[in-house]
Amino acid sequence: MPAGELRYPCPVSCPQVSQATETPMEEDEAWVWAQIKAEARRDAELEPALASYLYSTILSHSSLERSLSFHLGNKLCSSTLLSTLLYDLFLNTFSSDPSLRAAAVDLRAARVRDPACVSFSHCLLNYKGFLACQAHRVAHKLWTQSRRPLALALHSRISDVFAVDIHPAAKIGKGILFDHATGVVIGETAVIGDGVLIGAGATILGNVKIGEGAKIGAGSVVLIDVPPRTTAVGNPARLVGGKEKPSRHEECPGESMDHTSFISEWSDYII
Amino acid sequence: MPAGELRYPCPVSCPQVSQATETPMEEDEAWVWAQIKAEARRDAELEPALASYLYSTILSHSSLERSLSFHLGNKLCSSTLLSTLLYDLFLNTFSSDPSLRAAAVDLRAARVRDPACVSFSHCLLNYKGFLACQAHRVAHKLWTQSRRPLALALHSRISDVFAVDIHPAAKIGKGILFDHATGVVIGETAVIGDGVLIGAGATILGNVKIGEGAKIGAGSVVLIDVPPRTTAVGNPARLVGGKEKPSRHEECPGESMDHTSFISEWSDYII
Amino acid sequence: MPAGELRYPCPVSCPQVSQATETPMEEDEAWVWAQIKAEARRDAELEPALASYLYSTILSHSSLERSLSFHLGNKLCSSTLLSTLLYDLFLNTFSSDPSLRAAAVDLRAARVRDPACVSFSHCLLNYKGFLACQAHRVAHKLWTQSRRPLALALHSRISDVFAVDIHPAAKIGKGILFDHATGVVIGETAVIGDGVLIGAGATILGNVKIGEGAKIGAGSVVLIDVPPRTTAVGNPARLVGGKEKPSRHEECPGESMDHTSFISEWSDYII
Amino acid sequence: MPAGELRYPCPVSCPQVSQATETPMEEDEAWVWAQIKAEARRDAELEPALASYLYSTILSHSSLERSLSFHLGNKLCSSTLLSTLLYDLFLNTFSSDPSLRAAAVDLRAARVRDPACVSFSHCLLNYKGFLACQAHRVAHKLWTQSRRPLALALHSRISDVFAVDIHPAAKIGKGILFDHATGVVIGETAVIGDGVLIGAGATILGNVKIGEGAKIGAGSVVLIDVPPRTTAVGNPARLVGGKEKPSRHEECPGESMDHTSFISEWSDYII
Amino acid sequence: MPAGELRYPCPVSCPQVSQATETPMEEDEAWVWAQIKAEARRDAELEPALASYLYSTILSHSSLERSLSFHLGNKLCSSTLLSTLLYDLFLNTFSSDPSLRAAAVDLRAARVRDPACVSFSHCLLNYKGFLACQAHRVAHKLWTQSRRPLALALHSRISDVFAVDIHPAAKIGKGILFDHATGVVIGETAVIGDGVLIGAGATILGNVKIGEGAKIGAGSVVLIDVPPRTTAVGNPARLVGGKEKPSRHEECPGESMDHTSFISEWSDYII
Amino acid sequence: MPAGELRYPCPVSCPQVSQATETPMEEDEAWVWAQIKAEARRDAELEPALASYLYSTILSHSSLERSLSFHLGNKLCSSTLLSTLLYDLFLNTFSSDPSLRAAAVDLRAARVRDPACVSFSHCLLNYKGFLACQAHRVAHKLWTQSRRPLALALHSRISDVFAVDIHPAAKIGKGILFDHATGVVIGETAVIGDGVLIGAGATILGNVKIGEGAKIGAGSVVLIDVPPRTTAVGNPARLVGGKEKPSRHEECPGESMDHTSFISEWSDYII
Repeated sequence: MPAGELRYPCPVSCPQVSQATETPMEEDEAWVWAQIKAEARRDAELEPALASYLYSTILSHSSLERSLSFHLGNKLCSSTLLSTLLYDLFLNTFSSDPSLRAAAVDLRAARVRDPACVSFSHCLLNYKGFLACQAHRVAHKLWTQSRRPLALALHSRISDVFAVDIHPAAKIGKGILFDHATGVVIGETAVIGDGVLIGAGATILGNVKIGEGAKIGAGSVVLIDVPPRTTAVGNPARLVGGKEKPSRHEECPGESMDHTSFISEWSDYII
Repeated sequence: MPAGELRYPCPVSCPQVSQATETPMEEDEAWVWAQIKAEARRDAELEPALASYLYSTILSHSSLERSLSFHLGNKLCSSTLLSTLLYDLFLNTFSSDPSLRAAAVDLRAARVRDPACVSFSHCLLNYKGFLACQAHRVAHKLWTQSRRPLALALHSRISDVFAVDIHPAAKIGKGILFDHATGVVIGETAVIGDGVLIGAGATILGNVKIGEGAKIGAGSVVLIDVPPRTTAVGNPARLVGGKEKPSRHEECPGESMDHTSFISEWSDYII
Repeated sequence: MPAGELRYPCPVSCPQVSQATETPMEEDEAWVWAQIKAEARRDAELEPALASYLYSTILSHSSLERSLSFHLGNKLCSSTLLSTLLYDLFLNTFSSDPSLRAAAVDLRAARVRDPACVSFSHCLLNYKGFLACQAHRVAHKLWTQSRRPLALALHSRISDVFAVDIHPAAKIGKGILFDHATGVVIGETAVIGDGVLIGAGATILGNVKIGEGAKIGAGSVVLIDVPPRTTAVGNPARLVGGKEKPSRHEECPGESMDHTSFISEWSDYII
Repeated sequence: MPAGELRYPCPVSCPQVSQATETPMEEDEAWVWAQIKAEARRDAELEPALASYLYSTILSHSSLERSLSFHLGNKLCSSTLLSTLLYDLFLNTFSSDPSLRAAAVDLRAARVRDPACVSFSHCLLNYKGFLACQAHRVAHKLWTQSRRPLALALHSRISDVFAVDIHPAAKIGKGILFDHATGVVIGETAVIGDGVLIGAGATILGNVKIGEGAKIGAGSVVLIDVPPRTTAVGNPARLVGGKEKPSRHEECPGESMDHTSFISEWSDYII
Repeated sequence: MPAGELRYPCPVSCPQVSQATETPMEEDEAWVWAQIKAEARRDAELEPALASYLYSTILSHSSLERSLSFHLGNKLCSSTLLSTLLYDLFLNTFSSDPSLRAAAVDLRAARVRDPACVSFSHCLLNYKGFLACQAHRVAHKLWTQSRRPLALALHSRISDVFAVDIHPAAKIGKGILFDHATGVVIGETAVIGDGVLIGAGATILGNVKIGEGAKIGAGSVVLIDVPPRTTAVGNPARLVGGKEKPSRHEECPGESMDHTSFISEWSDYII
Repeated sequence: MPAGELRYPCPVSCPQVSQATETPMEEDEAWVWAQIKAEARRDAELEPALASYLYSTILSHSSLERSLSFHLGNKLCSSTLLSTLLYDLFLNTFSSDPSLRAAAVDLRAARVRDPACVSFSHCLLNYKGFLACQAHRVAHKLWTQSRRPLALALHSRISDVFAVDIHPAAKIGKGILFDHATGVVIGETAVIGDGVLIGAGATILGNVKIGEGAKIGAGSVVLIDVPPRTTAVGNPARLVGGKEKPSRHEECPGESMDHTSFISEWSDYII
C-alpha cells in the first residue's frame, strides 16, 4: 500500500515507521474518536435496528475512554460482578494512568493491517482480541499494583466472555493485532513486543519474548523466543527459516492478513 | 450402519446420496419439527427440571423457524443487544429468504453422522456448531445485503457466546457437521462445500475452498484447498495421501465421528 | 520443591504420593474450605471493590459444596435455565453422591502444581478448567443415571460459558489440572486418569485412555492412549520418546507448569 | 380550549366531539405514529444519553403496534416470563384483533387533556396508566377467550410493574386518561365508559358502571354507578351535586387536569 | 355458598369454623399442593405459552415450600440481592420453622372467600397480597431473631416489587385475604388477627389491633382498634355501626368480596 | 425526645431548630457517611448473607454521593435504560450541582423523626421515599435545564420501581420525611416546603404549597395550601382546626410518627 494512499498514520507499534508519526497521543486519540463517532452516526442512520446499540456504546459518550469503559463494563459483567462496578474500575484506571490508553494505537493497527477490519467503530465494538487486550491492560496494571485478586477476577471474566486468555502478569505491547482471537492463550511469563500479529488459536507459554513486529501463525504453540519481524508457525512453533537464520520480513507484519503467505513460509520445513 | 436401519433419509448435503431424497424442503422441515416436538415432550415428562426449558424453547412454538429464532435470540442477546431485537431479526430474515432455512438439513446431518447426537432436539438446543451455523446464515445474508455493521455485530455475539468464529462473509454450505465446534475459526474468504465435517478447534483461513463431503481434522489449520471427499489434517493441514493423489473416501465423511480413523490416515506422513 | 516446604499434602490424584495422605475426605475438605475462607476474608479487606463478590461467592456460605453450587449456578445460568434451578441441581447432586465432591482434591492439585495458582480461593472462583470439571462431574452423574437431556443441557452451558467442552459421558479422574483450559475438548469415549495435566487448547478424542499422571501438551490433538506418567505432544499427538519406549517421568507431572520443558521433550521428534 | 387551537382531532372517546372526527383508525394511527417518530428523532438529537432508549423503543420499529409490543414486552418481562414470549404475545394479539389497537386514541386523549403530557412519545414511553391500559386490553382479550391463566399471569405482571391493578375481566373503554395512575385499582366487574378521567390512587370496585366522560377524583373509592359526564369524589365516593341531581359537566372531563376544580365541586358535601 | 358445596375445609383463620377442621397441617398442605399441581398440569396443557412458566414455578418442584421459595426468590431478587441467595433464605427459613408455613391456609382463604380467585395455582403465582404475606412471614421471623438489617432489606424488596408495604415488625395472622393488595400499608406496631380481609390501598398504622375476621374497606386509613368480625371503613376509618355498638357480622368476612355490601354498611355515617 | 439525648444535630429542614446547626454541608455529609460505613461494617459482620449487598452498595464506595449513585443506578435500571447510563447520570448531576446533595440532611430527618428508622444505612438502602426523593432531585434538575425527555424517563423509572410518583417539575424541599411512601403522588405544580412529613399514600395535586414543617396524613388528598407547621388530613384533606385557625404545632412534625396523634387531631371534624 503506497504511503500516498494511507489515510491515517501507521500505528506507533510498528517501529520502523514510528519515527514518522509525531502525533501526540491526545491528538491521535481525538482524531480516532472523531472517526468512530462519524462512522457510528452513519451506521445508525442506515441501520435503525443497530442505532440503539450504537448510541448506547458510542454516540452517547464524550470520549473513547468512556465509550470503551462502558462497553467493557457491559460485556464483562456478570450477576456477581456488576457492570457499574466494572465501568467504574475501567474508567478510574484508564484515567489514572495515561499509558494504559493505547486503544487508539491498537485501533489503528487493526484498521491498517487487517483487511477484514472495515471501520474503527467495528473494531471497537466487535473485535474480541482488541477488547480483551484493552481489558488486559487494566488487569495488568492491577497486577503490578499487587491487587492480584481483582486482576485475576477480571482476567477470569475476559477469558469466559471472549475465550481469549491472557494472564494478567503477561506484558503486552502496543499495536498488537489479534486475528479472530478466539482461543488465543498467553501465559504468565510471556512478553509480547509492539506490533505483533497473533493468529487465531495461538498459544504462547513459558518465559518467552515475542519481538517487535513478529508474526505468530494461527494454531501455533510458541514455547521459544521469536525475534523481531520474524514469523513462527506450527505446533510446536518453529521460526520460518530456522532458528539459526530466521527469514526476517523487513516491513510491518502484513498490511494484509493473507495467510496463504504462511504456506510458502511453511514450505521450508514441511518436507 | 446398514441402510435398512436408517430411520430417516440421509442429509441432502451428502451428494452421492441426495438423489434418493426427493422430499421437498417444507415437508422435510415439518417432519423434523414433528420429531423434535415428540422428543421434547417425552423429555419434559421424564425430567421435570428441564420441562420449563423445553417448553420455552420448543414446545410453546409453532414452527422450527420460530423455535430457532427464539432460542438464538435468547442465547445471543446482551445488555446492549436485546433478545427481542434479535428474535425479530432472526424471524424476519428466516421468513424473507427460505434458502436460509437449512436447519432441518443440518439437523439431519448431525443426527445421521454424529453418534454423540442422541436426538434432533438435543442438537437444536445444545449443539453450538449447529446454532452458530444457523445464526451465521443470517449474518451472511445481512453481509450480502451490504448491512455490514449489523452482520458484524451479530458475528461478534456468535463468537463471544459460542467461541465459534465464522466471518459473516464466509460461504457455508448445507449439512455441515461441526464436531464439538469449540474454537473453530473460519475466515472471510473461505468457501465451505456441502456435507463437510469440521473437527474441534479447526481453523480455516485464506482464499480456500473446502469441497463437498470433505473432512477437516480436529485442531487443523487449513490454508489450502481441500478437494471433495478428501481429508485434511494437521497444522498446517495436509491432505491425507498427499496433494498429488489425496486418498478420496467415496462415501459420506463418516457415518461415525470415529476419530481414531484419522490415526491410520495420518500414518501416511507421520513416518 | 522439597517436601519440607510443602505446606499442604500432595493431591490424592498423584498416585505415588497418595499413600502418605491418610487424611479422610471430610477432614481434607474442611481444611481446604477454612483456607479459602481465610484467603477471601483477607482479600475482601484489602480490596473493597471485590468484597461484594467474595462475600456472595464464598464468605456467605457454610461449606465448599454450597459455595461451589452457588458460583456454578450463577456462572452457568441463562435466561432459559435459571440460576435457582441450577443451584438446586448442583447442591442436590453433590449432596446425594459424596464421590462427586472432588473439588478439594482438585483445588490442591492446582495449588501444588500450577505456579500461577496463587491461592485456593483464586482457583475456586476463577479457574475455568476447575469449574468446568466440577460441573462436568454433575453432568456425568446425570448421564450415568440416564438423565441425558439434562446432562446435555448442562454440558451445553459449560461449553458456552467456559469454552471448555467435555462430553458428559467422558470419565474424568481426580486431581486433574487444566492449564488455562480455554479451548480444551474431550470427547464422549475418552477416559482421563488421575493427576493428569492438560494443556491449553488440547483436544482428546476417540476411544482413548490417558493414564495417571500423564501430561498433554498445549494444542495437542490426542487420538491414542497415553500411558501413565508419560507426555504426549503435537498434532496429532505423539508420546515423547516414541510409542515403543516413551520417556516416563517418575514424579507428578510437573510441580511446575514450566512449558519450556516440553521443548526438550519435543526435541526427540522435531528432528 | 377553542377548536381553532386544536392541533389534532379530539379523541373519539369524548362523545359530544366524536362526530367531528371522521378519520378512520388506520389513518389516525399513522398520523400519531408519524408524530411520535418525529418527536423521538428530535429528542434523540438533543439528548444523546436518551438516544439509545429512543431508538430501541421507537425509532427502530416500523409501526406503533410493534413499538408498543416491544416496549411492553421489555417492561413486563421477568426471569420466568421472558420478554421474547411477551413480545410475541402482544404482537400476535394486537394483529389478530384490530379493536385492541386503541393506543392512538388513548394517546390523543392524554395529549389533549393532560397538560402534563408534553408529547405523544412521552406518553407512549412513560405513562404507566397508558401502558397498563394497553396491556390490559390484551389480558382482557385473553380472558374473553377463556385463556384465563395467561390473562391472570399478564395481569400479575402489570400490577407488579406499574402498581396499576386492573382485573382482566374489567371492561375498559377508549380514550381513558389515568392521571399519575399509581395505585389505581379496578375490580373484576367494573365497566368503565369512554373518555373517563381516573385520578391517582382511585379504587373502583363492585358491579359498577362509570359513564362516558365521567371524572373520578384522586383517592376516591367508587362503589356506585357514576353517570356520564359526572364527577365522583371521596372515600366512599359520592357524586358531586348528590345522587339525585348530580352536577353534570357538559364538555369533556377537563381539558386540563386542574384538580383545584375538585375543591369547589367537593364543597357541596364538605360541611 | 352452602356448606354442602364446600369442596375443601374452611381456613383455620376463620375462628368459628376452625373447630371443624381437624386436618393436621402437613396433610392439608399436601392436599393443597396436589391441587396446585393438577391445576398447573391442566393449564400447561391448554396454554403452551404458559407451560414454561408453570413448569419452572410449580411443576418442577417437589413441595409447596420449594415452589414458593423459588417463586419468591425470582420475583424479589435484584441485581444486588441475587435470586439464589433469596431462594436459600426462604427455603432455610421455611424449613427451620414450620409455623411460618401458613401458605396452604392462606391459599384456602383466598380460594374460599375471593370469587376472583379461580384456582389455588393462580393465587400462588399471581396474588401479590398472598406473596407479600408469605415473604413477610420470613422477614418477621428474621426481625424477631434480631436479624434486622436482613429483615429490612427483604421488606424493601417486597415493598418495591409488590407495592405492598408491611413493616417486618408487624404481626400478621393466618388466613388473611388481601383484596387486590396494591398500595396496602401496614405499620410497625400493628397486629392483624386471623381471617382478616384487607381492601385495596388500605393503610393500617399505629399501635392498633385488628381482630379476628374483621374487614377493612378499600382505601381506609385505620388508626384505631377494630374488634373481631367488625368492619372498618373510610379515611380515617370508623367502625360500621359506630365505636359503641359496632355491627358485628357473625360469619367469616364475606364468602364473597361483594364490595357493594360496604355501601349499605357505610350508609350509617354517610349523611 | 429531650435535646440532651439528641446524638446528632436536628435536620436543617426543621426551621426553628436550624439556627443551631452551623455545620457546613461537607462536614455534615462526611459525618453521616462515616456513620453509614460503620453501621454497614457492623451489619456485614453480623449477617454474612447481607455482606455482599452491603459491600456492593456501601462499603466499596468512597463517598455518600457515589454510593447513592450506584444504588439508584442499579435499582432504577431496566433492559432499555442501563445501570451504567443511570449511574453516570446520577454521579455527574450530583457532582455538578452541590445543592442537589441533600441526602445527608434527608437521612438525618428520617433518623431523628421516624422511630422505625433504625440506622442511617437502613434508610439509605431501603427507604423508598428517601430514594425516590434523591432521584427526583436529579429529575427536577434536568427539568429545569429543559432536558424534559430525560427527566420524564427518569420519573417513569422512579414511579415504576418505588410506586412513588413525584412529577419532575414539583419543587421539593429538604429534610422531607416520607412515611412508608408507597403510593405517594405529587403533581407537577406542587411546592413542598422543608421538613414536611408525608404519610403513606398521600396525594398532593394542583397549584398548592405545603409549608415548612407541615404534616400530611396518610391517605390524604391535598388540594389546598397547607400553612407551615400545620396538619392536613382526610380525602379531601382539611386542616386540623379548620382553615380559619388551623392548630399549629410549634415543633418539628413529630419526633415520632405516632399516627394515633392524628386521631385526636381528626376528632375536630369527625362527628
